[in-house]
Amino acid sequence: MNAIVSLSGGMDSATVLADAIDKGRKPLAVGFTYGSKHNPYENQAAADLAKHYAAPFRLIDLSGVMRGFKSHLMADGGPIPEGHYEDASMAQTVVPGRNIIFAAILSGLAWSEGAEEIWLGIHQGDHAIYEDCRPSFYAAMNQAIQEGTGKRVRLVAPFLDGNKTTILKRGLLLGVPYSLTRTCYKDQSLACGKCGSCQERLSAFCAIGVDDPVEYAP
Amino acid sequence: MNAIVSLSGGMDSATVLADAIDKGRKPLAVGFTYGSKHNPYENQAAADLAKHYAAPFRLIDLSGVMRGFKSHLMADGGPIPEGHYEDASMAQTVVPGRNIIFAAILSGLAWSEGAEEIWLGIHQGDHAIYEDCRPSFYAAMNQAIQEGTGKRVRLVAPFLDGNKTTILKRGLLLGVPYSLTRTCYKDQSLACGKCGSCQERLSAFCAIGVDDPVEYAP
Repeated sequence: MNAIVSLSGGMDSATVLADAIDKGRKPLAVGFTYGSKHNPYENQAAADLAKHYAAPFRLIDLSGVMRGFKSHLMADGGPIPEGHYEDASMAQTVVPGRNIIFAAILSGLAWSEGAEEIWLGIHQGDHAIYEDCRPSFYAAMNQAIQEGTGKRVRLVAPFLDGNKTTILKRGLLLGVPYSLTRTCYKDQSLACGKCGSCQERLSAFCAIGVDDPVEYAP
Repeated sequence: MNAIVSLSGGMDSATVLADAIDKGRKPLAVGFTYGSKHNPYENQAAADLAKHYAAPFRLIDLSGVMRGFKSHLMADGGPIPEGHYEDASMAQTVVPGRNIIFAAILSGLAWSEGAEEIWLGIHQGDHAIYEDCRPSFYAAMNQAIQEGTGKRVRLVAPFLDGNKTTILKRGLLLGVPYSLTRTCYKDQSLACGKCGSCQERLSAFCAIGVDDPVEYAP
């Protein structure tokens, strides 16, 4: 193991896992469960994806740590808004500091395990409402991790300047099994197709002219 | 509540708590338990200090998250080295990424709770072996948190350029009950007086010519 991939189970991180392996890394895939509505589904997707790629998988439980964090994405938060990702209502799904926390924990784990890289699926499409997915955050967090680990660990974000379509194109080339991924924010087994997360995914498949292999609720 | 103080239960963070209150903040004190040898003692000290200052206290359990992190400070690590803090052996007590992780979690909690500041007890005396206590780390982490929270949260480290003696002088002026604090790294009720952490504390009291009110093992 020489790299850690933050694997949520969505299409971005699934593609990052495939990309890391394609580029010769031997990754440990790490998922987080933190009390969100979609954790049960995305955590299972992450486990399935890691198994598909024969990558070791570790699920880190932050449900106690992040209990009470205010967000509609959380199990005890309000309803998941429907509509386009850029709608103001989607800001309700921001989980305070989530990527700061995930990257920080992975930096300690990477140092402890001797891995030099943490691969993240953050991309330009997330920037409008998610402050902790912007290039300026990535640059500062990468600096903080390098300083705080004595330059033992660094962040890698292969799609930082890309978007969902860039990612999907790369993933299709790599044969990523998108049927195994989970993108929907809602607390239901079949993806809704209506939340901002589903909408952005469907737009990417539509833009490329490929059918999304995931089944959607009628 | 308008600030969070990271309260380990040691003399640095106890002084930071007193300093924050003196400067008009209404802090939530937060401790972490992560599987170290001295957690049971320092967590109790943190709770006692928060009670002394009538500050709300929350203990965040990271023992699952940081399980397996390699350090002699951890319960399953090797023995705590004795001798001066600057001895190479004290590097064995570094816990990979600990302050990165603590600051990250507190940034999410602060954002969620509407607190704008996270007060930390990091200081110059820690810099030699602890990469995540250096000013360069502090500056980068502060930047990462400001970027990642949309400038809602920032770090405050009143003793960043000071050392244990600076802190003790300020704390004595503020009447900090140092008898309640816990500094020793070892897994024993009475402080050992021999580990680097105890030695640095004792040196500070000695430099000022004040008796340390904590009882040491014979």
